[in-house]
Amino acid sequence: MLDALFRPRAVAVIGASAKELNVGNRIVRNLVEFGFQGGIYPINPKVTEIRGVKAYKSILDVPGPVDVVHLPIPAMSVPSALEECGQKGVKFVILNGGGFAEIGPAGAAIEEQCVETAKRHGMRIVGPNCQGIINTAPEARAYCNFTFTKPEPGAVSLVALSGGVAELLHQTLFQMGVGTRMYASNGNACDVSIPEILRYYGNDEGTKAIIVYVEGLRDPKIFLDTAIEVTKKKPILAMKAGRTEAGAQAAATHTGGLAKKDVTTDLIFQKAGVLSFHDEKEVCEAAAVFPTQPIPKGNRVGIITNTGGPSVIAADVLVSGGLAIPQLSAASEAVLKEKLLKEVTVRNPLDVLATADAGHFRAALDVLMKDDEIDSVFISMVTPFFVDNESIAREIVEVNRQKIKPIVCTLMTDKIGCAETVKIMREGGVPCYDFPTSAAKALAALSRYGEIRRRQLSRVKHFADIDRAAARSILEQARTEGRTMLSAAEAWGVLSAYRIPAADWRVALDAEGAEGAAAAIGFPVVVKADSPSVVHKSDKGGVALDLRDAPAVRSAVETIAKGLGAADRRYLVQKYLPGGKEIIVGAKAEEAGRLVLCGMGGIFSETLADVGFRLSPVSDGEIVDMLSHLKGASILKGIRGEKGIDEAKLVELVQRVSQMVNDLPMIRELDLNPIKVFEDRVVVVDARIIL
Amino acid sequence: MLDALFRPRAVAVIGASAKELNVGNRIVRNLVEFGFQGGIYPINPKVTEIRGVKAYKSILDVPGPVDVVHLPIPAMSVPSALEECGQKGVKFVILNGGGFAEIGPAGAAIEEQCVETAKRHGMRIVGPNCQGIINTAPEARAYCNFTFTKPEPGAVSLVALSGGVAELLHQTLFQMGVGTRMYASNGNACDVSIPEILRYYGNDEGTKAIIVYVEGLRDPKIFLDTAIEVTKKKPILAMKAGRTEAGAQAAATHTGGLAKKDVTTDLIFQKAGVLSFHDEKEVCEAAAVFPTQPIPKGNRVGIITNTGGPSVIAADVLVSGGLAIPQLSAASEAVLKEKLLKEVTVRNPLDVLATADAGHFRAALDVLMKDDEIDSVFISMVTPFFVDNESIAREIVEVNRQKIKPIVCTLMTDKIGCAETVKIMREGGVPCYDFPTSAAKALAALSRYGEIRRRQLSRVKHFADIDRAAARSILEQARTEGRTMLSAAEAWGVLSAYRIPAADWRVALDAEGAEGAAAAIGFPVVVKADSPSVVHKSDKGGVALDLRDAPAVRSAVETIAKGLGAADRRYLVQKYLPGGKEIIVGAKAEEAGRLVLCGMGGIFSETLADVGFRLSPVSDGEIVDMLSHLKGASILKGIRGEKGIDEAKLVELVQRVSQMVNDLPMIRELDLNPIKVFEDRVVVVDARIIL
Repeated sequence: MLDALFRPRAVAVIGASAKELNVGNRIVRNLVEFGFQGGIYPINPKVTEIRGVKAYKSILDVPGPVDVVHLPIPAMSVPSALEECGQKGVKFVILNGGGFAEIGPAGAAIEEQCVETAKRHGMRIVGPNCQGIINTAPEARAYCNFTFTKPEPGAVSLVALSGGVAELLHQTLFQMGVGTRMYASNGNACDVSIPEILRYYGNDEGTKAIIVYVEGLRDPKIFLDTAIEVTKKKPILAMKAGRTEAGAQAAATHTGGLAKKDVTTDLIFQKAGVLSFHDEKEVCEAAAVFPTQPIPKGNRVGIITNTGGPSVIAADVLVSGGLAIPQLSAASEAVLKEKLLKEVTVRNPLDVLATADAGHFRAALDVLMKDDEIDSVFISMVTPFFVDNESIAREIVEVNRQKIKPIVCTLMTDKIGCAETVKIMREGGVPCYDFPTSAAKALAALSRYGEIRRRQLSRVKHFADIDRAAARSILEQARTEGRTMLSAAEAWGVLSAYRIPAADWRVALDAEGAEGAAAAIGFPVVVKADSPSVVHKSDKGGVALDLRDAPAVRSAVETIAKGLGAADRRYLVQKYLPGGKEIIVGAKAEEAGRLVLCGMGGIFSETLADVGFRLSPVSDGEIVDMLSHLKGASILKGIRGEKGIDEAKLVELVQRVSQMVNDLPMIRELDLNPIKVFEDRVVVVDARIIL
Repeated sequence: MLDALFRPRAVAVIGASAKELNVGNRIVRNLVEFGFQGGIYPINPKVTEIRGVKAYKSILDVPGPVDVVHLPIPAMSVPSALEECGQKGVKFVILNGGGFAEIGPAGAAIEEQCVETAKRHGMRIVGPNCQGIINTAPEARAYCNFTFTKPEPGAVSLVALSGGVAELLHQTLFQMGVGTRMYASNGNACDVSIPEILRYYGNDEGTKAIIVYVEGLRDPKIFLDTAIEVTKKKPILAMKAGRTEAGAQAAATHTGGLAKKDVTTDLIFQKAGVLSFHDEKEVCEAAAVFPTQPIPKGNRVGIITNTGGPSVIAADVLVSGGLAIPQLSAASEAVLKEKLLKEVTVRNPLDVLATADAGHFRAALDVLMKDDEIDSVFISMVTPFFVDNESIAREIVEVNRQKIKPIVCTLMTDKIGCAETVKIMREGGVPCYDFPTSAAKALAALSRYGEIRRRQLSRVKHFADIDRAAARSILEQARTEGRTMLSAAEAWGVLSAYRIPAADWRVALDAEGAEGAAAAIGFPVVVKADSPSVVHKSDKGGVALDLRDAPAVRSAVETIAKGLGAADRRYLVQKYLPGGKEIIVGAKAEEAGRLVLCGMGGIFSETLADVGFRLSPVSDGEIVDMLSHLKGASILKGIRGEKGIDEAKLVELVQRVSQMVNDLPMIRELDLNPIKVFEDRVVVVDARIIL
């Protein structure tokens, strides 16, 4: 629990100097000026007071208990200072200084020593190379931090390793008038982690939305599990930077070199119901809507505007963000035709005209709040000088207070001339934005979170008819022999243990064996080299298709043999299946778990990359969703009069693959490509398993 | 020429009232307070002065010449007032009021009457249903407008039909401290048009960048031709709203009902070198960089930062925007290692650390300005309290003044505490942004404009070996017979006239004829129904492939015949070409000209929509670009050891199609699908032409 960090009884600052431009001095000042509710103890052997607060020569001299100690001192001095903190019974140390893992091996060694010392004393470390934390709750007012933006109480909590970005987000919320609940920037994060902080924010009543900035996930599995829990209670809005190769490289060095390019972060966000953003301003603007607005029950939005253009922009963005702009009900239209200006065309978006007064706005709002076809309301308001804008604002605030449906507003105004209008809206808790695009994206985020809350976690099926032991013994045999790639026979054996349907097959060592195998399977057959060294078989002449009799099989084996070394001469004889559609299903081990992929197969999987990814275990709902988002989805449904595929069988196959790679962590990579799918069955035609 | 509009000798306001909340009154006030350099004449029979300016009973009483007259009066009073303006010799009238085409047929009739009256008197109309214009040039200071944002002189000019959006853009530039050069919002735009205004801005020395907001293009061809001219001189930054179905619907009514969903606007922007944006804030932020910064010579950016995270965000956005972040030269690295703090890791992005002072920043800037591997500089600056930020700002300004390479800056700061730093940067002409993403997108726009300026307008080839007359006579024959779809034979005839290579073909009326045709062509052949009513032939059993002998041809004809009415029994016999890759090439008549498309053919063109579009005439460079952006581009290049296609022949084919549809405007739609492309030739296999 991080209570002692965010609500400390007392905070000491080791290395606080009397000089103004000193980090420790600034932290003392921040604590004092922000009205910290606990004890403040500057530690400095050379002075008696700092910023009017009595200083102590050593942490050991401080009279009462100390929960948090800042150490804005050179890295090499930190370990011995930690010993004293440990003796004092300190609970959290915030290592503000640099010179640790982020500068290379020498610094990393000091960092390790710190971790070891802290652990020995049961202390926790924030940082090193970090700013610290803030808690604006009135009973805490803990400004344990040297950021330049004065905290303003609010209901959005922030966490980021990067101090620069944390400060930027913090300041943006400040400038928007939204404020911050809690703040944590923990730099190298050698101990206290982002998931721990997320969990703490999740349990904090005063936090209504959480913003997290990451450049990569240290422990994806823990992040995923934590986020799944937290997003049930409140939204997590995440920004991941380092998305491009160049960005990832830039990220790779600046906080202890632990960030790295990854492919799974978006999948983790998706699985956990984390709202994902690519823009630091957008994430703040979206977070701002949650503290005051209810979660909409659906995605249908009613737009009220008093000027045309901005509602066109808003409509584009809302629809792109997954919202719908439905027609109003007949009853609503009838009321509006009566109550609005006669020149108004009643429709959605509803342009009440620039000459609309407070009564017209109120009438429009009341109607949308009652209309069952509408889940949320978007207002686009400019402030013409010839109407009473303050009265309009008061009506909006009045309806907003009822909290029937969420409202967001674009307020395009002269902020100086119309300062009172701005103030009424802000104090009335109406989320106001300068730009239609900003407001629309914020409403889209609110609506998306509504969907996340509503989504049924669809069933992850567990198959009991499988033979896990058999599969495992095949894998272990290969591992014992030092092989990382299974032979075809082994791969088919593993699939068979998991009852994954495959084209009938036999292994043969020579042409006679192949002829016999073909006769047993029944013509036509395929013959393939069964050698781990032949990866893309069709590139190397390692495959012969549609062999219709024994001589054809013999000739194929002889041709293939020419391309193989003596040791590699093993052949897989398999039933040839003409027609059908080609699908690829695969799996890959990633830190966060097993990635399962599914997409259009054959040559197009490589060139068009028409595949979807999910983290296993995957539910049937996730698989259906993945298939429906393929560009080739319509091919699977059947076009030009062709019949579609048996989707249920394909879904079951993917579920079995998901269970298999979870059951058998030895499998690092699995590639079923192609799978032939027909209108009544699915059959794996080629398989590759890598340990 | 719009000189009399933007630099009027005198402005009259008909209907200016003494009441404060009156549009005419506000326009008079705006002209007076902004220091308009010409005469101001309120016209009102009932008062002697407005805002201290002498009022006249009628426009005809005004002593001197009047170039511009505002008419913020009810629509029905406008036509007679226009008569008087005409008698007075007024050059431009600005119709500020509503009640015209935007409210329906009655208003449209008044609007037409206004156009007619104005034309008769040689007057031009701005609007109706509009705000008017602004020109901040010191010799004009024409604030002919009732917007609430006071104009601040700058070098960015704006034009939009929508007053709400124009005001929003205007205010954004004001809040950014960038200012406006000229402004025009012309509502229903019944006369003076956006292209006219663009052309005027293009010739205005004081305009360094132009922002245009559109919801659709009234006359795409004129817009295209104008934009091509203007972008050679200065950038046009365009935002098109109404991109979604819902957005287009919202746009459809609000300015005279002329906006409509279109598909060609983006192509027009691309062809004209217009920078395209989807976000109203981004377009302003990007425009802000042009007035002070030189155009970069290339796309390679050097990043200087004093905190890690923001440079990661910037790197992502820069690279996504087409910029590269190269290594620094060895010489640069050597200098930096010597001059920066010893803890600095010298690389690009270059983190000079939060403790860097003005000297360190200057050293880094000087090195990047000299480094031949770098074309522009991105600065990410936070303002820690423990360094002298003002000195750093002064060094940046100093280097910026040299205008060697463009600089953009993210300045993350406490705008109150560090107001002086902000002021130094702003007055020094350094484009500063609150967010790394904003700054990076602005630099990307600057760089993209550099590319537009450098791009060689590649050659549009004109083929002289074609027989236009032959093609035209086929089309005219069909038209005379009242048909809009050509028969297969006609389509092949047109292609042949343009020397577009097609599979050898003959038309037959029965099985015997088909057998004879097949023998002449040589087996194998394809037989198709040659009926305009059979569009997707493979859906309806109207095609038989790979017929290897006469009996097969006969049987195919008999089968196909069953699906055809007696009148439709015509057959196309064509050489069957197995193998090759399938490409689709097409053309479609749009208002802006002929759209040419090229993409992956066959079933995938429908389901994956893997096609590119350009406006004809297309140059070889445009075609190569279009092909290289297909998802299936690697298939065309050849994968898995296959040979690639003969690209030159395909490019020539598309050029011939482009010339054909330009030569023959009767062709409304052309669909060559598939075209079989081989390593040494391209052959059209199926063709459809619609008039």
